[in-house]
Amino acid sequence: MCQLLGMNCNVPTDICFSFEGFCARGGKTDEHRDGWGIAFFEDLGCRLFLDDNASIASPIAQLVKQYPIKSRNVIAHIRKATQGEVGLENCHPFQRELWGNYWVFAHNGNLENFEPKLTGMYLPVGETDSEKAFCLLLETLREKFPHGKPKLEELYSILKTVTQTLSSQGIFNYLLSNGEYLFVHCTTQLHYIVRQAPFAAAHLIDEDITVDFQALTNQDDRVAIIATVPLTDNEVWTVISPGELLVFQDGIPILGKS
Amino acid sequence: MCQLLGMNCNVPTDICFSFEGFCARGGKTDEHRDGWGIAFFEDLGCRLFLDDNASIASPIAQLVKQYPIKSRNVIAHIRKATQGEVGLENCHPFQRELWGNYWVFAHNGNLENFEPKLTGMYLPVGETDSEKAFCLLLETLREKFPHGKPKLEELYSILKTVTQTLSSQGIFNYLLSNGEYLFVHCTTQLHYIVRQAPFAAAHLIDEDITVDFQALTNQDDRVAIIATVPLTDNEVWTVISPGELLVFQDGIPILGKS
Repeated sequence: MCQLLGMNCNVPTDICFSFEGFCARGGKTDEHRDGWGIAFFEDLGCRLFLDDNASIASPIAQLVKQYPIKSRNVIAHIRKATQGEVGLENCHPFQRELWGNYWVFAHNGNLENFEPKLTGMYLPVGETDSEKAFCLLLETLREKFPHGKPKLEELYSILKTVTQTLSSQGIFNYLLSNGEYLFVHCTTQLHYIVRQAPFAAAHLIDEDITVDFQALTNQDDRVAIIATVPLTDNEVWTVISPGELLVFQDGIPILGKS
Repeated sequence: MCQLLGMNCNVPTDICFSFEGFCARGGKTDEHRDGWGIAFFEDLGCRLFLDDNASIASPIAQLVKQYPIKSRNVIAHIRKATQGEVGLENCHPFQRELWGNYWVFAHNGNLENFEPKLTGMYLPVGETDSEKAFCLLLETLREKFPHGKPKLEELYSILKTVTQTLSSQGIFNYLLSNGEYLFVHCTTQLHYIVRQAPFAAAHLIDEDITVDFQALTNQDDRVAIIATVPLTDNEVWTVISPGELLVFQDGIPILGKS
């Protein structure tokens, strides 16, 4: 299995603190050594860092920990290979373009015997069930809405249907973003926290590091962090229920809360 | 205008030396300050680093200069904006998937009043003429070969035709790769060099740095470097003629020499 980390905010924010703790799980405090990746949306653009080295041994992860890239939507993943060799082409997040926007996807779980019939619109480059599922999601959205991005409610409805179908094949926790929304689906395990005023200090579980967000934020900032397992030990994280597909925008879930 | 740098080799090789010189042109020895990017193929996978900072001021460029990523196909670009704002979404190289492979593209030039009718198969995320041209190239290849990647000769023939059409719109120097081949098209200015045994020392034009390739290579290694303007001052670079579309594989041009 793997672990997921997502961030969605109302103002561009760096993810250095959360990524520091998350990164430790890539070979230090946990066993996810088979590669990692992180995608940062900056307006329409997207930076995607991928590495098939363990995150604790990766010079690129070192850079990402130290270099405060400000983004409103971030998706990160550390990999413990289930399907597909250890290789760059099997590292999440995956990226494709749909309706003139980049879409980014990372998956934690395992879809057994998963061989979807893809039309060829999007094809996997690597061997993972995850990339096949991503191709199927995007293909479905494109076929349903061939003329461009629909309203969120329409998009959500189709995404929910195809997600439920895929979930029947196995474990399908995922993060998906087009830079505008962060879609979060839980089959087994995902948590989130919304940080907003009054801000407090937070302490990582995986590293002995504390950050006082009050000193780093403005009154109106709002940041949602989503993670497979909570990253801090002095804050209250919300459990996402199995079957929930949440949509985050501007640092809060705006759709999908059951 | 911009500058291009490409590498194609028969064994995975790092581009640190060439990138060091190239990078200096992004604000130190030349004026290309409006962002930069570099793509490294590793088998099927692809690492893409993009930055809208000048390459001489970019922590990510610093990492790429120091961290020897080994690749058989590399495409790099430093940008001086002509069409499109300074922004991550307008940085080259651009990446899309076709036939289950990543394709990467960078352009130096300017296509005037360029508004191609795209079917929607591939749409630009940013505003550059370059990304529109890339979308049109891939759309054309996909439409001509809907069932998958054809033989190189067939692919070349279609690519040559659409490239000639696009070249009639303006300046269209480009590098294009699917990780297997590096396609190099010249409208105005491109050079290449093939380094192979007996290897010698090379000295950069833009930085006072010399590398002795004999100490770093094996007898059978072969590396082609393609650049807008030669990077070294003690080697003989070959001028690519206007209108030539070369295909490099294993460190040499295998198709397109007129």
